[in-house]
Amino acid sequence: MNAEPAKKGALYLVPTPLDFGMSVESAALDTWLPRETLAVASRLTHWITENARSTRAFLKRLDAAVGIAAPVQGQHITELPRAAHKKGDHAPQAQGDAQARELLDPALQGHDVGLVSEAGMPAIADPGSAVVRAAHGLGLRVVPLTGPVSLMLALAASGLNGQNFAFVGYVPQESADRARRLRELEALALKTGQTQILIETPYRNSALLQALLHNLHPHSRLAVSCAMSLPQQVSRSALVSEWKRSTALTSALPLETPAVFLFGR
Amino acid sequence: MNAEPAKKGALYLVPTPLDFGMSVESAALDTWLPRETLAVASRLTHWITENARSTRAFLKRLDAAVGIAAPVQGQHITELPRAAHKKGDHAPQAQGDAQARELLDPALQGHDVGLVSEAGMPAIADPGSAVVRAAHGLGLRVVPLTGPVSLMLALAASGLNGQNFAFVGYVPQESADRARRLRELEALALKTGQTQILIETPYRNSALLQALLHNLHPHSRLAVSCAMSLPQQVSRSALVSEWKRSTALTSALPLETPAVFLFGR
Repeated sequence: MNAEPAKKGALYLVPTPLDFGMSVESAALDTWLPRETLAVASRLTHWITENARSTRAFLKRLDAAVGIAAPVQGQHITELPRAAHKKGDHAPQAQGDAQARELLDPALQGHDVGLVSEAGMPAIADPGSAVVRAAHGLGLRVVPLTGPVSLMLALAASGLNGQNFAFVGYVPQESADRARRLRELEALALKTGQTQILIETPYRNSALLQALLHNLHPHSRLAVSCAMSLPQQVSRSALVSEWKRSTALTSALPLETPAVFLFGR
Repeated sequence: MNAEPAKKGALYLVPTPLDFGMSVESAALDTWLPRETLAVASRLTHWITENARSTRAFLKRLDAAVGIAAPVQGQHITELPRAAHKKGDHAPQAQGDAQARELLDPALQGHDVGLVSEAGMPAIADPGSAVVRAAHGLGLRVVPLTGPVSLMLALAASGLNGQNFAFVGYVPQESADRARRLRELEALALKTGQTQILIETPYRNSALLQALLHNLHPHSRLAVSCAMSLPQQVSRSALVSEWKRSTALTSALPLETPAVFLFGR
C-alpha cells in the first residue's frame, strides 16, 4: 500500500533588510519587516538563496528578533545556481528550469520553503524568478511577504510619475553606448510620461550620475535615492538644469551606498 | 526683531495596509507595517491624504496598535485636490503645483507631515506625486517608509522578469482599443523581455482577464495576483495556453478584490 502523498509545502518570498554589506549598525529586524513576515520566516527551515552566508546572517538576526524553528546550522540552505545570479536569471532555459524544480524538492515533500536574496525582495532586481516559475509549474502555493523594496521607496520619494514607470536595470558602461541608451530612455519618458528607473553597482554610481547630468535634457526631472530605508537615507529630486546649477543637490549624497536613479518629465 | 525661522518639517510617505474597503476583519496594523513605519506615523499630527475618512480610520487603527500623538479629531487632515485623484495626478500644471505647495504650509512652519493614500504606498499607482515634487522644490526632506506595495508583491510572485518591468496602469475599456493596447504591450514584452504590469477597477477584473486570454499569444506567460498581503491572497502564473486549458487556474480566483495582472515571455 502506498502512503498518502504528503501535502505540498508553499514557496514564501521573504524580503530582507536593505542594510546588507553596509557599514551601519544592524538594527533589529522588526525595524523594517512587519510581524507577519517575521512570523512566517521564523518557522521555515528550508531556504533557497542567492548567498548562503548572508542567509545565515539573516537567520541569526531573525533568531534575535523573534526566535527561529531550528538552529541556524541545522537549517537547509541551498544556493541558486551561479548562472541564475544577477542579470542572468530570467531567460527561460530548459536546464535552468530543471535545476529550479530540483531546488523545490523539499516543498514536494511537504516542507514550506523560503526564497531570499541578499537584500530586499527576491526576484525583483535580483535572481529567483526561475524558482517562482518552477513553483507554479509544480502546483505549489506562492506567497510573497511584505518588506522593503528599494525601487518603490525611491519612486515614491522621487515625485516622478508613479502611474506609469519602468525599471530597466543597468545601462551600458561604455560611454557612447551609455549615452545612446540614456537618450533612448529619455525620449520614451518624454513621449509617454513613463518614469525610467535605473540602478548601478555602487562604485559606478558617481559615473552614472555624471552621465545622466551630461546626457539628459535640462528640463527633464532627475531623482536619486541612496541608502533607502536606512538612517542615512537621502532622496533628492530636481530638474536636470537645477542639478547642474546647485552644488547643494550633489553635496553629501552618499553615492557609495546602493542607489536608485530615476528620470522623466 | 524677527524670530528665528522655524526648522522645516519633513514629508513622510506613509504606506497603509491593502485591506481598505474589503470585507475582511481588520488585522492589527503591525501585521503589515514594520516598527519604524508605525513609530514615525504615530508621532505625526499633520496629514495630506487622498481621502480624509480612510485616514481617520487608519489613525484609529494606528492608535490601537501603538498609540498616536494627538486624538484623531485633533489631527490636521487635508485632502488632495479632486483633480489630483487617480489617473490625473502627474501632469505638472502650474495650478496643481501651487496647490501642492499650499498643502505643505505646515511643513514650512516646522511640522512633520505624512502623505497617505487609501491603500498601499502613496504616489505609486495612486495620487501624491505633485506633493512630493513640491516638497523637493521647497527644500523639505522627503522620507519614504516601508510597507506593502501590491505591484511588487504581485511581480515577485509572478515568476516573470523582475530585472526589467513596466507598470502601465489601466488599459482602455472599449474592446477594440483594449485589444490593440494589449497586443502593443505584448509585442514590447516579447521583443525586450520587459514584464508588463496592469491594474483594473475590481468590477472590471473579469473582463480584463478574458481580454488577456483572448488577445495574448498562447506562449506568453500570464500571472494574476488578488488580495495581495491578505489572508485570502492568491497568485497564479502560467502560459496563456495553460490558462485556457485548465479550469483550476481560474476557479476560485477572487477577482472581486483588488488584482494585479502581469504578462511577458
